[in-house]
Amino acid sequence: MAGLLMELFNNGKHICLVFRDLVTGGEAVQANQFLVYDNEHAALIDPGGELTYSRLFMAISEYMNVKNLDYIIASHQDPDIVASLNKWLVGTDAKVVVPELWQRFIPHFTRPGKISGRLITMPDQGMNLQLGSISLKALPAHFLHAEGNFQFYDPISKILFSGDMGANLSPDADLNTPVTDFSQVLPYLDGFHKRYMNSNKVCRFWVHMVRQLDISMIVPQHGRAFSGKAMGQFLDYIENLQCGIDLLTQDHYRIP
Amino acid sequence: MAGLLMELFNNGKHICLVFRDLVTGGEAVQANQFLVYDNEHAALIDPGGELTYSRLFMAISEYMNVKNLDYIIASHQDPDIVASLNKWLVGTDAKVVVPELWQRFIPHFTRPGKISGRLITMPDQGMNLQLGSISLKALPAHFLHAEGNFQFYDPISKILFSGDMGANLSPDADLNTPVTDFSQVLPYLDGFHKRYMNSNKVCRFWVHMVRQLDISMIVPQHGRAFSGKAMGQFLDYIENLQCGIDLLTQDHYRIP
Repeated sequence: MAGLLMELFNNGKHICLVFRDLVTGGEAVQANQFLVYDNEHAALIDPGGELTYSRLFMAISEYMNVKNLDYIIASHQDPDIVASLNKWLVGTDAKVVVPELWQRFIPHFTRPGKISGRLITMPDQGMNLQLGSISLKALPAHFLHAEGNFQFYDPISKILFSGDMGANLSPDADLNTPVTDFSQVLPYLDGFHKRYMNSNKVCRFWVHMVRQLDISMIVPQHGRAFSGKAMGQFLDYIENLQCGIDLLTQDHYRIP
Repeated sequence: MAGLLMELFNNGKHICLVFRDLVTGGEAVQANQFLVYDNEHAALIDPGGELTYSRLFMAISEYMNVKNLDYIIASHQDPDIVASLNKWLVGTDAKVVVPELWQRFIPHFTRPGKISGRLITMPDQGMNLQLGSISLKALPAHFLHAEGNFQFYDPISKILFSGDMGANLSPDADLNTPVTDFSQVLPYLDGFHKRYMNSNKVCRFWVHMVRQLDISMIVPQHGRAFSGKAMGQFLDYIENLQCGIDLLTQDHYRIP
């Protein structure tokens, strides 16, 4: 199966799509890409790597003229997020929206000059990005896991696109079924969050911020979405998680 | 200027080269790439992004048949480290050496199947990599800055290739002159280390490990090398650095 396209939200004028890249067959991690469309304007969030470009381009073209895409947004600098950047720069007229922290790293994905005049940087404190009639909120999620990292909140669908936070390596057959009880997904995310997420300190800052939002669904970049009571259960889990550097000792830093 | 090639060490059988990518003209961060050559075998450390591939390939070919390269090593997953991976896979028969933690992320730089049979993964505790007559040490440097991250120690030249640790955005004209007193480079590295390095906790673990090595030079991936007393001064600075999450409060995690 090359990929799965699904509508997360559609009221006729405002659409949220998820494209689930399934082609990689175990070699590369499964990743979700997102399109937020509002009144003839659209943003692609975390378009993925070389593996994804052609199929995602075709999938989006069923909804709009892809050339007219407003934004390619990269939550952080990882290859599963944005290694396809050069192709998107050539294939569309979109502006590229990246964390200010990675502003001088991300051009390494492309060739000299390709990105000039097309870059919008997100400052550490986050920002509101005008998209058609809405303001897409870029929320700070630094060190979760990347040092400079953003999540995105759509005020119409009330979806929180949470990036690696909540990422779960669930079986492909379950990907389009939202998690309704956190126990369904715990075995598929516990190891990842304990190793890649930074520390309980920043986990708690993030939970306190997110609890202030009115959220319909938490949709991570890998695996299944969270809905209903699973969202609160997930936030409780993260609030209490010991992870990353909390678990490291001098034993982890020894000469081999 | 397209780039600068310099020998860091050469005893006839064992050679360490640095290639300093200068072509990017301010848009992308200046980055160093390294070749460690020993008795007809060679490893390329952190070959860089799309910007670097052709010039680096040509530079190396003055020393050896690049097709015979043994290893392409990626210390972590960032685009300035290894976005050129696909080209190196095609252009050489080298094995690709990556942190186990990024094993399923790094294939996003390339196309399906390209990497199979050519991947060597470095476990979290580090490893010794056989290269000609030497064992190149892959030292754990996790969360400095990437969550899965290695540095490399060459037992012949006694060079520590320290990756982002010590990275400094020094003026191009100074790049080939090693830092002999830490004050020469402090203004070019302080901001970077305070924002990208994780926390004093892991900085201290790293310093304690590194102090046990017999080091001739600390050579970071960006900017100038450290020699003489500047090495000890740099280690003292890192041991006492408050950085990353040490400096974050709830104020940094607010809805914009």
